[in-house]
This record gives sequence, C-alpha cells and structure tokens, in this order.
Amino acid sequence: MKVDLTRRYKFCASHRLHNPAFSDGHNRQVYGKCNNPHGHGHNYVLWVTVSGPVDQRTGMVCNLADLDDCVQQEVIERFDHQNLNLMPEFAELVPTSENLAVCIDGILQRNFCCVAVERVRLEETASNSFEYAQRDELAR
Amino acid sequence: MKVDLTRRYKFCASHRLHNPAFSDGHNRQVYGKCNNPHGHGHNYVLWVTVSGPVDQRTGMVCNLADLDDCVQQEVIERFDHQNLNLMPEFAELVPTSENLAVCIDGILQRNFCCVAVERVRLEETASNSFEYAQRDELAR
Amino acid sequence: MKVDLTRRYKFCASHRLHNPAFSDGHNRQVYGKCNNPHGHGHNYVLWVTVSGPVDQRTGMVCNLADLDDCVQQEVIERFDHQNLNLMPEFAELVPTSENLAVCIDGILQRNFCCVAVERVRLEETASNSFEYAQRDELAR
Amino acid sequence: MKVDLTRRYKFCASHRLHNPAFSDGHNRQVYGKCNNPHGHGHNYVLWVTVSGPVDQRTGMVCNLADLDDCVQQEVIERFDHQNLNLMPEFAELVPTSENLAVCIDGILQRNFCCVAVERVRLEETASNSFEYAQRDELAR
Amino acid sequence: MKVDLTRRYKFCASHRLHNPAFSDGHNRQVYGKCNNPHGHGHNYVLWVTVSGPVDQRTGMVCNLADLDDCVQQEVIERFDHQNLNLMPEFAELVPTSENLAVCIDGILQRNFCCVAVERVRLEETASNSFEYAQRDELAR
Amino acid sequence: MKVDLTRRYKFCASHRLHNPAFSDGHNRQVYGKCNNPHGHGHNYVLWVTVSGPVDQRTGMVCNLADLDDCVQQEVIERFDHQNLNLMPEFAELVPTSENLAVCIDGILQRNFCCVAVERVRLEETASNSFEYAQRDELAR
Repeated sequence: MKVDLTRRYKFCASHRLHNPAFSDGHNRQVYGKCNNPHGHGHNYVLWVTVSGPVDQRTGMVCNLADLDDCVQQEVIERFDHQNLNLMPEFAELVPTSENLAVCIDGILQRNFCCVAVERVRLEETASNSFEYAQRDELAR
Repeated sequence: MKVDLTRRYKFCASHRLHNPAFSDGHNRQVYGKCNNPHGHGHNYVLWVTVSGPVDQRTGMVCNLADLDDCVQQEVIERFDHQNLNLMPEFAELVPTSENLAVCIDGILQRNFCCVAVERVRLEETASNSFEYAQRDELAR
Repeated sequence: MKVDLTRRYKFCASHRLHNPAFSDGHNRQVYGKCNNPHGHGHNYVLWVTVSGPVDQRTGMVCNLADLDDCVQQEVIERFDHQNLNLMPEFAELVPTSENLAVCIDGILQRNFCCVAVERVRLEETASNSFEYAQRDELAR
Repeated sequence: MKVDLTRRYKFCASHRLHNPAFSDGHNRQVYGKCNNPHGHGHNYVLWVTVSGPVDQRTGMVCNLADLDDCVQQEVIERFDHQNLNLMPEFAELVPTSENLAVCIDGILQRNFCCVAVERVRLEETASNSFEYAQRDELAR
Repeated sequence: MKVDLTRRYKFCASHRLHNPAFSDGHNRQVYGKCNNPHGHGHNYVLWVTVSGPVDQRTGMVCNLADLDDCVQQEVIERFDHQNLNLMPEFAELVPTSENLAVCIDGILQRNFCCVAVERVRLEETASNSFEYAQRDELAR
Repeated sequence: MKVDLTRRYKFCASHRLHNPAFSDGHNRQVYGKCNNPHGHGHNYVLWVTVSGPVDQRTGMVCNLADLDDCVQQEVIERFDHQNLNLMPEFAELVPTSENLAVCIDGILQRNFCCVAVERVRLEETASNSFEYAQRDELAR
C-alpha cells in the first residue's frame, strides 16, 4: 500500500530574470517586467511529495518531523529571505522557478533518505506553479 | 529535465444543463437544479498544464506571455461572460464541465505550438473539478 | 460579551447587467462585458454576520441550525441556480451585486429574529465583494 | 475521452496517535504532540477522484448526486464528528491520515459502482495531504 | 497614523459540546452532531488584530516576533493538540468557539502589552468564524 | 443605502528592512531575517475598499473600471516588480508593509475621486496583513 504524502513549506525570496549572454533588449523581450533591474520578489510555496508503503507499526509513510528537519535545514534556511541571483546555485543559471524547482528536487534527492522523494511543486504566485519529478524521468 | 508548468485562468459564464432528446422529467432527474429553465452561472477556474524541457538559455519551459496570449485569445475571449448554451461548440453537446474541459483542451492542442499541452483542469466550483489529458489517451 | 458570528453560504446564479432606460451604447459603456446579451454567471459566496451576547447556558450566540434554516429557505432556495434578471426582486432593479447584497440583507432582517443580523457580504468573484450593514445606517 | 472528476467533501473528527505496542516514550518520540493523551482534532478535507468516458447523452462522467449519496452515506456519516480511535476500523490500526485514506479508498471501491474510483486524497491540515490510488497499485 | 496588524495562527484541538445541566435530549437538540459522546476536532485558525501608531524609527506597529512569542507561549502551547473539555478554562464553560474566542482575547489582553489587542477572530471551519473585541465593548 | 465595495489587486516587489540610523546589530535584532543584506520579496495582495450610496440608475457604488484604472496606473505600475528600497517613497522611510499601506492609501485618496476610499489592506503573506483607514482617523 503505497501512499503519497505531500507537505507544504513557504519561503520568501527576491530574484531578477536576466541572462548576461542576451542583449538588454532581448532580456527585456524574453522576461518582461521580471527583467526590471532591481529585482522583485515572491512568497514561494513549496509542495514536497514523498511516497512509500505505510509502516504497519507507525501507520505512517515517514515521520513528518524528519521531512521537516531536512527541508528546513537544506532548503528553507538556504533560500528564505535571500536574493536568488546572488546564490552559488544561480551563478551560471537564470533563477527562474523552473530552475529553482529542479534545484530543490536535487537537494532533496541527495539529502532525504527515509523514503522516495516523488516530486516537488513550486508555486511562484497563486497563478503559476512548476513541478519537477526526477523519478519519473529516471523511470523512462 | 522536463518540467510541468501550470497556469491559472478565470472566466465567468452561464449555462443550463438540458438534453432536448430527453423528456422534461428525465432532464430534471439527470441534471437536478442545473436543469432550471433560465440557467445559472459559474466563475470557472481553468488550470492549463504544459510541459517540456527547460530551455538552457532562458531557464523557462515556455514563455508565459505566449501561453497567456493563446489562452486569452482562443479561450477567455470566446467563453468569458457568455451563455455557453448559445455557442456553436455546444449546439449539439450539453455544456457540462466535462464537455467544456475536453473542448478547451482541443482548442489549446490546435493553437498552442510552443510546447506540449499536457492537460486542462476546469474548476466549476471550489468543490468540483474536471481534468482531461488528450496526450495521456493518445499514449495508450 | 457580544460576539460576532460569521457563516458562509454559496449559491450559483446568472445575470446580465442592463438598464432598459439606457441606450445600448450607454449600457455597453457602463457595464462592459457584463452587458453581453445572453448573460453570464457567478458562484456567489455569501457571508452573513450576526451578533449578540453569548448565552451562558449554551455558550452560543445563536444556534447555527436556526441560521442555516433561515438562510437556506429564504435566500439559497430563492436565488440558487436562477437567472437573477427574471426574479421579481429585480423587475425594476439592475441585478448588480450591490443591489443583491442589500436585497439579501433585507430578507434576513425580516426573517431572522433570533439575534441581530449585523451585515451581509457578497463575494461575486474572489476579487470583488460587496458589504451592506443596515444596522450601521440605522444607528447614524 | 476519459475525464477525471474530482469532488471535495469535508468532515471533522478527533484522533490520538498511539500504538499500544510501543512504550510511552517511544510513542511520544514517534508521534510528538499527536500522542497527547486526550486527543485532538482536524477538519479533514476529502478529495475523491473518479474517472471514465464522458457519456454522450448526459455529457457527464457520472452523476454527482450518485457520488454524493455514496460518500455521504458510507464515509461522512461514518466518520464525521467522531473520535477515530474508537471506531472498529481502527481497533487494530493507528488512525493516521495514511491509514484513514487507505480505509476510505477501500470503502469507495466496495460501494461505488458507477465509474472507477481513481484515488482519494485526504487533507489533514492545509499543510499535509495523503493520497492513495489502489487502482495504480493493481495496474503494476 | 494608526495601523491595524492582523496575524494568523493555527492550532488543532478536539471538543464536545455538552452542558451537564441539560438533559441528554436537550443537549442533542441544542448541539446536534457536536454533542456526539466521544468528541470531534477542528483545525482552528486564529486571527489576532493589534493596532497602534506606526513607530517612525522602525516603521512597524509592533514587532511580530514579540506578538508571536506571546501567542505561541500563552495560546498555542496551551490549546494545541488538546481536548478542550479537559482544560481548566472549560471546567464550568461549554467549549464553544464563542467561549474560546472570548477566552483567548482575555489571555492576550492580560499578556500582550506592546500595543493594543483590538480583536480576535477564531475560524472553527472555513465556513464559521467568531469574533470578539473587548475593546469595542469597553468603549461603549 | 451605503455599500462597501472591496476589490483585490496583486503585485510583486522586493524589499529589505533596514534603518541606516540603527547599528547593524540593532537592525538585525529589530528586523531579523527581513534585514538580510540582499533583500527578499513578496507577492503582495492589496484590498481596496471604497464606499458610497448605490447609484439608482446603474445599481453600482462606482464603476469597477474606473477603480481599476486608478489602482493600475497609480499603484500597480508604480510598485509591481520593483525593489521598494530604491523608490522615492522610501528614500527616508523603511519599506515595511505598515508604511506601504499608508503610502498606498495616500495615493488613492489623492487620485480616486469617484467615491470615498474607506481603507486599504495589504497582505504581505497569507499570515500577515496591515490595514489603514485615513477616513477613520479624520473622523475622530
């Protein structure tokens, strides 16, 4: 009996979408207002889905406290109240939510060992979300 | 690295559920209050999911402005503030949310060419939603 | 110890904003898309606030079952799944949410006697709401 | 044309997470505050997803009234305003949301015959949800 | 320049509505399902509104960290994951949300000294909320 | 018949809470993570409430299109996708949400003339909001 457990986390960060390899005009065309020079910010909502069999003794897929510890230490403390453009993860990468979702999935795959991390979904605003599932890709 | 991007759109419309091939009594039995003669309406919420690899230069699956243009022109301008029963799409079809979701998916499959349209989800109310994924069906 | 109790109700209805005393052009200018000839609809959310002292024996301001009975019979059954333009309340009145809120407040003032009806708030969409408080006006 | 229909239901219940086979200390370590002796409670939100072809005559996957009747009688009336620890379903099972989701899926698989029950998702709080899809498991 | 600051908190608890001075039949009639013998529970959402002039140096009405410390220690740690019926506050009082809101307002009035506590609003479910403003009453 | 009309707007911006008149240590103590050197951001939700009598001919308090034009031009275009610290409004003022709410109320009081602007409420996150009502203050 495999159950998916999805848990919500939140963090705030600022970013500016800008690729230095593009001309200013092309940056403006591609990213619109998100290319404004001084950056802007979001309240990101992160949904992490893990899955596994229900442990017959505890009745749980995994202990939420373990998942919280990992996400708190490895993701929230790293990104919360930061300017994404200045972080090493985005030294060579535009800090779009697509790239941030893939980055967070990688962090969790490396650091959370209790049960499988199925996918991460990152809501940039109530209207936009981005989902990445490394496991689905490996399975192909 | 394939990422799913989901974006939310909204429109308001009215409809009446009624199949002229049914008797009045059968219409009432099948559709209940939704068969009331003068129609009623909803604030529909439409979630469109597209997917594709993350473009290494832009960091994006596709440009949201392109998706917005397509959905705005082909879906919102067509259905917003309309009576669905009077539209050509529903001349021969009961304007249920199931049929509307399939119809909108078809419009997007024909008109949005940047990346794959994975699925559409149509929320009729906060309690009811309908999801259609043509691509999943073709893949079977 | 006066406590405010607010309870949420929902109904769906269609309407068309149109004043027959205006020219077609003026109607279009005033009401925009809401003047589209065949109407459109909304999932209305109605918040009713009543207030009074907390009954020492029951610990309640009023019995929710009594409030539900009144709102269900007098408001929801009257307006749910209807075309507002065809109702007697709007024979001489444009069925805007302002007028609908005032109308619902009047219905509740006449029909709910257990405790005071403080105000009604009507959400037309997640972005627009309209609040009317007859009691505040009488107190001036 | 297979469409997924998802409908939301709600119920309130209390529970205490406690495995009598564990020591008190181990119970406290595994379940934290959820092991508090006198229990606590939740407003559970249940999302039921059924799927099937759209009936060409009705335009529907299934009649919501049938789904509502089944969920109301078999799930809501059973669990709403109850203490889960005292129910026969949890005589030998810790009433975690994982176990409750699997239990509700089983009830619906046995009782709802109109169309396939794809999955159930149980939200314990706005931050935690649990999803179970028996059909996916059978398909493996 | 007086600004209202409203902050949201959450806790889960169980309760049973029952007045021992009433007969069983009258309890059932007054409280309905909420009188079920073994209790049930809620995810309570608590909105605390404080108000005051904006401090010209900090730009703040009060420090959220101070408010969080007070609410966390005095309210959340007291009520979270508890059975309200067994708490001293409800030894002589039915643990309705009306009474709980008044009780929490009193706790905050006694313990939060930085700025004025304007009111508390307690959401029992997404459909029901209860608001109490001691300050408004004193002002009358 | 005075009705309150409340409309929701959204914008994204970044800010850093820092008072140059404070020492680094005091800034850190007062603002916590919000003092992180490179700023962070939010999806702000702005609720504007206007009020007035219902116009008997239109059935409206004011035309939403007029309110939208004003808020769009004077507020959203000014603050959306910007770094608040670099704007003239905050040259001498810490860009807290308290100050931003008062600032936006002032902009609307000066620019919206159709009906009275009752108050603005600014949600910084789903947990924090700030409300300012100049009119209430003037009335005292």
